Amino acid sequence: MDLKNFFEPKSIAVIGASRNPRKPGNIILKNLVEMQYSGNIFAVNKKAVEVLGKKSYLSIKDIQGQVDLAIIATPASTVYGLLEECAFRKINDILVISGGFSESGNEKEEERIRDLIKKKKLNVLGPNCLGVFDSYSNLDTIFNPREKMERPKKGGISMVCQSGAVGSVILDLMAKENYGLRRFISYGNASGLDESDFIDYLGKDEKTKVICLYLEGVQDGEKFLETCKKVSKKKPIIAIKSGVSTEGAKAVKHHTGAIAGKSEIYKGVFRQGGILQVNSIEELLDCARIFERSKPVKGNKILVITNGGGLGIIAADQIALHGLELADLSSATKEKLKGKLSPNANLRNPLDLIGDASDESYKAAIESGLEDSNVDMLLVILLPQTPTITINLLKILKNIYEKASKPICLVIPGGSFADTLKREAEDYIPSFSFSTNAVLSLKELVEYHKIIKGQE
Amino acid sequence: MDLKNFFEPKSIAVIGASRNPRKPGNIILKNLVEMQYSGNIFAVNKKAVEVLGKKSYLSIKDIQGQVDLAIIATPASTVYGLLEECAFRKINDILVISGGFSESGNEKEEERIRDLIKKKKLNVLGPNCLGVFDSYSNLDTIFNPREKMERPKKGGISMVCQSGAVGSVILDLMAKENYGLRRFISYGNASGLDESDFIDYLGKDEKTKVICLYLEGVQDGEKFLETCKKVSKKKPIIAIKSGVSTEGAKAVKHHTGAIAGKSEIYKGVFRQGGILQVNSIEELLDCARIFERSKPVKGNKILVITNGGGLGIIAADQIALHGLELADLSSATKEKLKGKLSPNANLRNPLDLIGDASDESYKAAIESGLEDSNVDMLLVILLPQTPTITINLLKILKNIYEKASKPICLVIPGGSFADTLKREAEDYIPSFSFSTNAVLSLKELVEYHKIIKGQE
Repeated sequence: MDLKNFFEPKSIAVIGASRNPRKPGNIILKNLVEMQYSGNIFAVNKKAVEVLGKKSYLSIKDIQGQVDLAIIATPASTVYGLLEECAFRKINDILVISGGFSESGNEKEEERIRDLIKKKKLNVLGPNCLGVFDSYSNLDTIFNPREKMERPKKGGISMVCQSGAVGSVILDLMAKENYGLRRFISYGNASGLDESDFIDYLGKDEKTKVICLYLEGVQDGEKFLETCKKVSKKKPIIAIKSGVSTEGAKAVKHHTGAIAGKSEIYKGVFRQGGILQVNSIEELLDCARIFERSKPVKGNKILVITNGGGLGIIAADQIALHGLELADLSSATKEKLKGKLSPNANLRNPLDLIGDASDESYKAAIESGLEDSNVDMLLVILLPQTPTITINLLKILKNIYEKASKPICLVIPGGSFADTLKREAEDYIPSFSFSTNAVLSLKELVEYHKIIKGQE
Repeated sequence: MDLKNFFEPKSIAVIGASRNPRKPGNIILKNLVEMQYSGNIFAVNKKAVEVLGKKSYLSIKDIQGQVDLAIIATPASTVYGLLEECAFRKINDILVISGGFSESGNEKEEERIRDLIKKKKLNVLGPNCLGVFDSYSNLDTIFNPREKMERPKKGGISMVCQSGAVGSVILDLMAKENYGLRRFISYGNASGLDESDFIDYLGKDEKTKVICLYLEGVQDGEKFLETCKKVSKKKPIIAIKSGVSTEGAKAVKHHTGAIAGKSEIYKGVFRQGGILQVNSIEELLDCARIFERSKPVKGNKILVITNGGGLGIIAADQIALHGLELADLSSATKEKLKGKLSPNANLRNPLDLIGDASDESYKAAIESGLEDSNVDMLLVILLPQTPTITINLLKILKNIYEKASKPICLVIPGGSFADTLKREAEDYIPSFSFSTNAVLSLKELVEYHKIIKGQE
């Protein structure tokens, strides 16, 4: 199925392009116009002749020429008729933002729409969703104002997200923490296209390096399993399944109208589909960060490098908790490091460079770790508050990471100064605030490489 | 034991007040001078006549008049002699920043110091530590420059922290996230005063509302247990015990020279001592935030209020996971809410005000929840990215929280705009980025009230 028009349409019609700045249709049009989306943009508003400086059409039927994508942001009761108009105009790709269907008890209207979609063979994304954001084409149908919700930079993470609210949080967090996004899709009630259609499409997209899912319920279990089995061989799929508790499952029914299903069944499907299951938004994003740009990993042995002893101990505990191991440094590595580190440094693992560690001691420690065949991955903890660390260290790390053949991840814990460094470091190397988060991601990285190996 | 001189000394001598701006002794003196510590400050440097504009004494013996607290920040080899000089000058309260003792294999020198401390009956904090920060008196011996590490505002959280690195991260995070600190103590190798001495002292301190611990190992288990038993009846004690894995325990030995001990034994001691055990720095801070200002809690039933359905489902899952319950809203509450919320809002729990929720609908929902006797606690999720929420809501929340007799906590997830709101909200009401963190804290709150009740 070709879903290109949902991400890079050459012409878009926004139906329900309101003049009220609080209405979704207004904000969507504003985002497209202000962010200078490169395609043709048509406003459709049956009560206006002009919206946001754009000529407004009374109906989609009045637009001359090609419309690749229609975006509908009008009340639920009008959606059926508008879909019919689109079908009449041979606009096959339609994004329905409008809510007010099965999620608010209006199952009947949703059923009617589903039937029409099937009959007319339409590609419909939604209803009851945020739609899409593509950071490359800049197609942005998210109706949260940009001053309240930033958009992430270009990158390799694609996100398929049933809930619009969860999607908003994820996009906003990704922007704050300097993540790289490829495509974001919020698909809501999935009356037409479902999660599997998008997973399949992203699987073939070269720019997507990792696929993240937030699921409340899956429409077609078999299709989902087959799609994921195929895609996960090529690129990692990480998922949160919410509604795993009885109470949560009840809430799902009243949200996207989906059936949450038994938690155990999902676990089984995820395992068979090669999907990595995580438990929170934080974990999903942490894993996405490391999967986007990680080097391949051979084993489960980690070298921890730190300039704060206590932080090394917490990391060691986390490593043991997740079934990973601390690597034994070879005697050659220890020999190499003598004289390059502070005389009180501990030549063990965690490798404690102690409080007066310098940029150069970090360089020596990381390079030796990369050369040591006992070491599979590096977890580098950097307490930037200490007087002897300078921001030059980031450049050193960048150079090392580019050449490295093993996964490295960085932990920069603390406040505003630490966050600024972390954001900058993230441009070069996956960076975290806590070793708890970093270690969990490394565990998933090891899991994924086991899955790939098992499938070969 | 009166430890007042470690927090509010009328006169301080900084021994090792270096002229090198990267040396701890220099930074400590600078912090005291620049932050205008109200007591007398004496610099001691045997090679200088002036440091940072302060007259420098060649030796502590040369200072005329009273010295309440001596801070030693010189090489390990000089510490013994300096302690002797302090004893001679009848300076009993001494803070030893200097490292280079058992943590780096120099057990012998540490033993010598321990003996001297005992013989001369000195109160020594350290060695190998960051010392103290008191946000009320502004005594600050943390040698991380203020431009790299901010200091938290005044508040009710006191922190007893074995590791200096972990302590730095905690203070820096507390400042970033707008936490209120009373006192911070990093005690390192604990050759003299130990964790129990400080817990006991903080137990009697009126401004301390909650005591947080980061422990690698405890010096005297029996003393620790008796102290905590006594103090936890009056105020909550929350602790991380690191070195719980075999690998972590090994690392502890080479860090603060402590014996990590068996994880199971600690669990038992914590339970008997009424201590709440958490697993990470994040959890410690999350719990501290809610314990500092929480209202008493009667049961385990939570009302979740949200303007994003998916976020409510995640919260419901977390509540079930932690053995808490979703409250059933009374029919009176439902009746009251009709007409006050969006027509599509779900009058269930999670109470989904949906995407177009206004400030007023939040007010109505929270006030009704507080009045409903089925509800013990409120978890209010606020997606501020939506167009219809305004910053006035924070004022509304402040007014409600001041009068509320039940715990409320706020979740404001997202990026920079969300963070700004969260920081501001934190002045009025405990605020979190993720419901995962908020729910865990509510669970600990319920646990604590069970402990208190059990002890009555």
